[in-house]
Amino acid sequence: MSKQIRLNAFAMNCVGHLSPGLWRHPRDQQAARYTDIHYWIELAKTLERGKIDGLFLADVLGVYDVYHGNADAALSAGAQVPANDPLQLVPAMAAATEHLGFGITASVSFEHPFPFARRISTLDHLTGGRAGWNIVTSYLSSGARNLGLKQQLNHQQRYALAEEYLEVCYKLWEASWDDDAVVADRASGVYADPRKVHPIEHKGEHFEVPGFHLSQPSPQRTPVLYQAGASSRGKVFAAGNAECVFVAAPTRNILRDQVADLRRLAVEAGRQASDVLVLNQLTVIVAPTDAEALAKLEDYRQYSDREGTLALVSGWTGIDFGEYAPDQVLRHVQSDAIQSAVDAFSAADPQRQWTAAEIADYCALGGDGPLLVGSPQTVADQLQAWVEETDVDGFNLSSLVAPETFVDIVDLLVPELQARGLFKREYEQGTLRHKLFGQGDRLGASHRAAKLRRGAE
Amino acid sequence: MSKQIRLNAFAMNCVGHLSPGLWRHPRDQQAARYTDIHYWIELAKTLERGKIDGLFLADVLGVYDVYHGNADAALSAGAQVPANDPLQLVPAMAAATEHLGFGITASVSFEHPFPFARRISTLDHLTGGRAGWNIVTSYLSSGARNLGLKQQLNHQQRYALAEEYLEVCYKLWEASWDDDAVVADRASGVYADPRKVHPIEHKGEHFEVPGFHLSQPSPQRTPVLYQAGASSRGKVFAAGNAECVFVAAPTRNILRDQVADLRRLAVEAGRQASDVLVLNQLTVIVAPTDAEALAKLEDYRQYSDREGTLALVSGWTGIDFGEYAPDQVLRHVQSDAIQSAVDAFSAADPQRQWTAAEIADYCALGGDGPLLVGSPQTVADQLQAWVEETDVDGFNLSSLVAPETFVDIVDLLVPELQARGLFKREYEQGTLRHKLFGQGDRLGASHRAAKLRRGAE
Repeated sequence: MSKQIRLNAFAMNCVGHLSPGLWRHPRDQQAARYTDIHYWIELAKTLERGKIDGLFLADVLGVYDVYHGNADAALSAGAQVPANDPLQLVPAMAAATEHLGFGITASVSFEHPFPFARRISTLDHLTGGRAGWNIVTSYLSSGARNLGLKQQLNHQQRYALAEEYLEVCYKLWEASWDDDAVVADRASGVYADPRKVHPIEHKGEHFEVPGFHLSQPSPQRTPVLYQAGASSRGKVFAAGNAECVFVAAPTRNILRDQVADLRRLAVEAGRQASDVLVLNQLTVIVAPTDAEALAKLEDYRQYSDREGTLALVSGWTGIDFGEYAPDQVLRHVQSDAIQSAVDAFSAADPQRQWTAAEIADYCALGGDGPLLVGSPQTVADQLQAWVEETDVDGFNLSSLVAPETFVDIVDLLVPELQARGLFKREYEQGTLRHKLFGQGDRLGASHRAAKLRRGAE
Repeated sequence: MSKQIRLNAFAMNCVGHLSPGLWRHPRDQQAARYTDIHYWIELAKTLERGKIDGLFLADVLGVYDVYHGNADAALSAGAQVPANDPLQLVPAMAAATEHLGFGITASVSFEHPFPFARRISTLDHLTGGRAGWNIVTSYLSSGARNLGLKQQLNHQQRYALAEEYLEVCYKLWEASWDDDAVVADRASGVYADPRKVHPIEHKGEHFEVPGFHLSQPSPQRTPVLYQAGASSRGKVFAAGNAECVFVAAPTRNILRDQVADLRRLAVEAGRQASDVLVLNQLTVIVAPTDAEALAKLEDYRQYSDREGTLALVSGWTGIDFGEYAPDQVLRHVQSDAIQSAVDAFSAADPQRQWTAAEIADYCALGGDGPLLVGSPQTVADQLQAWVEETDVDGFNLSSLVAPETFVDIVDLLVPELQARGLFKREYEQGTLRHKLFGQGDRLGASHRAAKLRRGAE
């Protein structure tokens, strides 16, 4: 049988995630209903009907205010602002499903690991072991300013802090409560055996946490760990910690190199190459026929919002694209940052003369990942080629019109992939980690967190 | 018609809340199911069936380690440890109900107000305007230590910090987004009008928050504000900020004075006496007949855990009751703290010679509030007397065996109160605040937060 493709739905608790302006589409429901818990419950049921592996929730704790130096374009387009807390959506969706996994995005910069570890343990309990955490090392600087920080930590400092933050979390999750600490014996009256609950006595550069974890062990203890790290330091961090890595490679060549790189780094970190699943961000427009899918693309495109898109891209790159006329060829601008951005876009598509307008056009529907459009057969052919040529494990699928994009994927694309033997017809039993790796609920022995377990030395 | 009694259910996301050891009762479900979201969904439906005003979730971010200087007794008895995050329970319960209010407990000491305000706005959105916040100014010192704080702030510092924390939250909730900031006009493509979204530009002693709130206005904007403050400074804080105040008065005389005091302080703070609802903590054992209720009391009592109870009381008072023999008369101990504790217990019950064993016995079932036992008629008679003699607005009802205590209240006590015209037969429409005060969704004009609204000066 061919390699099974993993599919995540990628969403955000906001009006519009990666396709500014599409909230205006007459069939979009999310903009009007993102504050309604029933919208999310219905979405979770749809995804589980399609055997989708997980719903991944992005988050930012700031606003896109690089473009023109303010957040006007982002606010006007509803581009990731307003944005609500993702965490609170998950238990309600978990109650309505049995197998769907859930990932939430949370930064190590802005909540202390002691309460954060409890939040995640609670999430893993309430989902019955279906919790994932997308480890983010920074946020937009507007977020940092609102937390009273004068500036973001630099790159190296951020990763040093992140490594210690994870160490505290790992100790709380893996080393504080023995497997048999919870006795829950009504006869003896002992709920937890105090001799088997251990203070972690962490004393580090950034954190001091003497006590024990407040939550009893959850099904997975450590949630499934996700990370998106594009920089070389980020990739080392991901290879050393993450079980699933998000990338956003625009072409198969670029993706093939990234996948190989991550697997090599995982091995260098003492893990198996297969210990890390790599998921590429990708957007799909699928309809019964190619012609209908192309018509859908044209229909969607008329709702996209150039200003909102440039607000997002300016935030991602740190470049204020509002400083340039829409048709100015950016290759001629004297700026290392601009040249680096143009290089990246040119690698994605060498045919274009990159201008702000071209960038907005390219990123308007689903951000900077690939956009596949066609019939179920066409899209399945392409996905199959992506997997065969790059060794990628699966895809993080964003929506254009929500939940329509996800409904189309579930109703049209999934059956085609199943017919080809490329996608499961039933979920595996067990926790999210067991579903993904088939080796039980707990982090594998080669992971650094396993070495913090009591008696592991 | 008589004054309508308000009833809250009081619970915690843990094995056992206020009655250590009762988790061992054969009919207790919470200990085995508190990590199961369906347990909480069922509880919420039960409470809504009984037209209960709200479910209030306590929380601690620490452990009860004063007794014998360690957490052994608390762990062994499952006394508020392990304890999970309360926040994540609420949206799932809200999805299964229409009217029940929800309060969560959160401290101002341990999360920055910028992300916290977003969490609460999200909660108010997802509950459709049924969110309440129990403002806590401190936690157990074991919690502070695990956040890297060398010691708790002193009393005055805590309240100064709390006042500024609230000011930041009020500005984010009330003064950042104009009522007409969200346009959501598909034709013009404007989601939010940037001219109507205002940075709060807060610069204070503890916090600097320049930006605007990340969430669009929720139904209530500011959640219904609850507070429990027993000290004189705490009462001033509560009278100036809280809309509902929790007290735990053991006798009607004590409660009458506390209610009068709070109403006077509210008026001194420029509010109406009726702007503050006072709820007394109370535990009810109700059964079809008095004899059956008394039998239930005896049945319950045999499961109580003295060590676990003393762990809680030692944590609440800061006194290590493990230093004294169970039958040592504490009145003879040379210690101001002990004398003050004995005075408080003697005011509750002058008949007893207070020893550690007597304190444990007194607090074993439902903590230090009153315990009412009897038929629906007997308990209703007593509640009616409490209300008539004290002017209290209602009660915060904790459980002994969960959810049995709440089921008994809903099935037996509520119909009796309804028959007497003391309790509503149907919920009011609207947000939690409107249900409680009948004057709309928003904080009243006399509240200090209203004065922070744009154009309020």
